Amino acid sequence: MADTTRMSVAEIEEFAAGMLQAAGTSPDNAAPLAKAIAAAEREGIASHGLMYLPIYMEHVKCGKVSGTAVPGVTHPKPGTILVDAGTGFAHPAIAIGFAALVPAAQACGIAVLAVSNSYNCGVLGYHTEALAAEGLLGIGFTNSPASIAPAGGAKPVIGTNPMSVAAPDGAGGAALLIDQSASVVAKSEVMKRAREGEPIPLGWALDADGNPTEDADAALKGSMAPAAGYKGVGWGLLTELLAAVATGATLGIDASPFSGTKGGPPRTGQMFIAIDVATTSGGAFAERLSALTAAIGAQEGVRLPGAKRAAARARADAEGVAVPTAILDKARALLA
Amino acid sequence: MADTTRMSVAEIEEFAAGMLQAAGTSPDNAAPLAKAIAAAEREGIASHGLMYLPIYMEHVKCGKVSGTAVPGVTHPKPGTILVDAGTGFAHPAIAIGFAALVPAAQACGIAVLAVSNSYNCGVLGYHTEALAAEGLLGIGFTNSPASIAPAGGAKPVIGTNPMSVAAPDGAGGAALLIDQSASVVAKSEVMKRAREGEPIPLGWALDADGNPTEDADAALKGSMAPAAGYKGVGWGLLTELLAAVATGATLGIDASPFSGTKGGPPRTGQMFIAIDVATTSGGAFAERLSALTAAIGAQEGVRLPGAKRAAARARADAEGVAVPTAILDKARALLA
Repeated sequence: MADTTRMSVAEIEEFAAGMLQAAGTSPDNAAPLAKAIAAAEREGIASHGLMYLPIYMEHVKCGKVSGTAVPGVTHPKPGTILVDAGTGFAHPAIAIGFAALVPAAQACGIAVLAVSNSYNCGVLGYHTEALAAEGLLGIGFTNSPASIAPAGGAKPVIGTNPMSVAAPDGAGGAALLIDQSASVVAKSEVMKRAREGEPIPLGWALDADGNPTEDADAALKGSMAPAAGYKGVGWGLLTELLAAVATGATLGIDASPFSGTKGGPPRTGQMFIAIDVATTSGGAFAERLSALTAAIGAQEGVRLPGAKRAAARARADAEGVAVPTAILDKARALLA
Repeated sequence: MADTTRMSVAEIEEFAAGMLQAAGTSPDNAAPLAKAIAAAEREGIASHGLMYLPIYMEHVKCGKVSGTAVPGVTHPKPGTILVDAGTGFAHPAIAIGFAALVPAAQACGIAVLAVSNSYNCGVLGYHTEALAAEGLLGIGFTNSPASIAPAGGAKPVIGTNPMSVAAPDGAGGAALLIDQSASVVAKSEVMKRAREGEPIPLGWALDADGNPTEDADAALKGSMAPAAGYKGVGWGLLTELLAAVATGATLGIDASPFSGTKGGPPRTGQMFIAIDVATTSGGAFAERLSALTAAIGAQEGVRLPGAKRAAARARADAEGVAVPTAILDKARALLA
């Protein structure tokens, strides 16, 4: 195993915020992104933790993301919040949007946030969980550069396009958290193996000629395999409709890549829907949710969606997180 | 091929409405259900067309559904509409709910309809398409008696739980219609083969011991295979959260079966979300949607979701639909 440095979650956040600012990110933009990076490390999602920090820093430096953008918020209808991220990071745009979305959902019973002109939002479930923490059911969609071809076709038309739902536990958290892409695996898993020079399992991706491949580099030049064939394509299209078509963001087919330094800002989008489920359920939500999670959790060998993240959190809070020293060095080297 | 009778779409609707009323359904409840049956035949979805009519009639007679229910509508918040279907058919409950949902979505920018105490709603995309016809983006969820086990478990905890999205074409229809269950195939496909004494392909379902089976009867006593393993379970859970937990409807684990005459009303639920996407997209919706559908449709061998239904419609309007005479006789025999 590579050399690691044990850091607390607070130390990770502080390190990330400092590095992002040193690379040219405003303190207001660096703060929510650093918090999300620390949360990913805390939940054991290394692919979206500090591993991404050098990429974020490089992207600020090359202009793929604006470190000093100021998100523009409008509120055209009682339940509709629009945020133009101004080619800045998605995290501050979403946080500013949520400040208006939460009271709108409480007042109307449901509200929608459309974020355009945005960037990779990291772990989608991180954002829906913030809505659950407010006692609302949060649903989220984010699009990404095209990497999945339609059933029967060869040319990618949608990204891995995850969707997420977080159900409030009534105690400031999520009782159930689902966060899954339309592909067999998230593209970041392939990118991680490509960086590490590791092969990928057959079935994850296709090469540029549409043939199954175990070569992570060839997969990144080809396409991601949809989960369950045409159904994965359908779920990914649903996300594309909501996160891009309905927000006015750039479609996956037109977006510049999330990786590398070329192509300028991807200008992709996110949509979040917040529902006051205490009202829609006539007060029955908590009781119904307990019955459902009990039926799942009672089965031997079955884990509730989100349970793995919760366990990793408890461990990180007690013991901190072992961070590969090379990642910290890579971030520091970008400032040299 | 079995004997068939060629009927126009209007004749199918009239026949269905007459049979439903003769079986004890009020004219107000029979009308929207007959219209949906005719629409399913028109779109080539035979499993939800007249094939279901004798089942609906039997269910009115045995009390699994109330033919004379009057749906109760409340509007507790500007964007929240609740309908208690009163153990009646889902179709009139949804139609009454949509009459309030559409203007609420136009006023607030987004609105939600929660239907509880309901019944099998037939083709889910039929309802989301009605929202698209109003110029809104429609998303729909419906739960059903538990038939899918969680990943790693053996006992079903959710139904095949479809979700649907319909994108408005701005001309009274849907430019893109996605409607898919969380299972490899819809349970109605297995029921159809069980009725016809036909085998099912391996991979569709498991028997009661959790083993793959080609026997449709054994499959109905076992469980449906989720599409893409744990991801299908996740998508089905998302639907269960919205259609049942968040509406206060009966969970799939507690619902009586949709088939057969035993167990009383299933009291399952539906949720629909209508979004004014002209507002969320800043007016960019139509242009973005055209670009997306063009990128998909331009590929050889690729069909847009919903295109098959549209083609069947044109055929049915020109030539009518060939209906198996045995189905008409079966419905008539129930009145003897």
